[in-house]
Amino acid sequence: MTVESLPVPEETRRRLDFLVASHALTGVGRLNRLVDGSRAESSAEHSWHLTLTAIALAGEYAPEVTLGRVLTMLAIHDLVEVEAGDVPIYDEQARIDIEAEERLAAERLFGRLPAPQGAELLAAWHEFEDASTPDARFARAVDRLQPLLLHWAGDGSVWAARGVTVEQERRLMSAIEQFWPPLGPIATALIDDAHRRGLLADGPMP
Amino acid sequence: MTVESLPVPEETRRRLDFLVASHALTGVGRLNRLVDGSRAESSAEHSWHLTLTAIALAGEYAPEVTLGRVLTMLAIHDLVEVEAGDVPIYDEQARIDIEAEERLAAERLFGRLPAPQGAELLAAWHEFEDASTPDARFARAVDRLQPLLLHWAGDGSVWAARGVTVEQERRLMSAIEQFWPPLGPIATALIDDAHRRGLLADGPMP
Repeated sequence: MTVESLPVPEETRRRLDFLVASHALTGVGRLNRLVDGSRAESSAEHSWHLTLTAIALAGEYAPEVTLGRVLTMLAIHDLVEVEAGDVPIYDEQARIDIEAEERLAAERLFGRLPAPQGAELLAAWHEFEDASTPDARFARAVDRLQPLLLHWAGDGSVWAARGVTVEQERRLMSAIEQFWPPLGPIATALIDDAHRRGLLADGPMP
Repeated sequence: MTVESLPVPEETRRRLDFLVASHALTGVGRLNRLVDGSRAESSAEHSWHLTLTAIALAGEYAPEVTLGRVLTMLAIHDLVEVEAGDVPIYDEQARIDIEAEERLAAERLFGRLPAPQGAELLAAWHEFEDASTPDARFARAVDRLQPLLLHWAGDGSVWAARGVTVEQERRLMSAIEQFWPPLGPIATALIDDAHRRGLLADGPMP
């Protein structure tokens, strides 16, 4: 296909091109598995489940946020992985190393859109990355909470395969309370329960 | 895992239970394939790409809608498939047959949530199904446009495998213009271009 041949306005062509290119996020695999274990969760599925998580929790835990902005940030926050790939949270150095690459990928990807909209979504992406507003901080907390919920609901095999200890998980998940304090007790309850059931190993990080 | 053991408020337990159960939407496959052809797009991925499509098009084509409500409807609209499965749009009789089952599934699924929120999301699901507001009509149009965009961007194999003709596609996609007239010309341009390139066969529906 070639978007250039479509008899629609140039700005619409650019939006359609952005949407087709973005669909490749379905091909980026994450650490989490599907409930049935058949394959890795894709970053597109993770992004969808984040929007659902925000919808389910915002009314009770974050009534002050603007849901449309939160959901927009969650829908676009992983798009850079189309170019840069997903780096698990447990690869802490690799996550630092990839930051510059992700920023360039964001400029290229949102640059496919007409200028005002591309700049607006790039700004929303930076807002999320920098956790610079309440909307972004709630979104960042949700982005940390959702994988924890799935690990807790599963059999702990992701944690076991990475050698994740309860200390490391507590440290990494403390970001949830830092980003959005009302969600902190949920994270603590999930980690404590997973630890009690033996899904998270004792001891400090390896 | 058992959500009952978590030391969080009962309403939070119900929200977490809803979120874990909903994640099964990642296991529901659709007709569309991923860009690399490796597997079927899941309904969770479709839902994510719909939110992205709404974000990309709302500013230009639907500035009057409330984005948070549109994105909420798109994120939840296919959740009933966790119980009822996905029925392709080309199976027109089966789609009518499944409606009652989907309505029951929606009541059960949203009934997992605390009462006020469950009722609110069930109402949003009905609003989408009934296309009873401008927000819902824009969302419905986006739900039709996104698969058309992917078919157009792909190699036409989904259309070919189903024996879909240009007449049938025009008839089914006329809903886009009916739901949201400004998006009609995009649908027409995609279908005409796919027809011109031989991705859609000539002739009336089989």
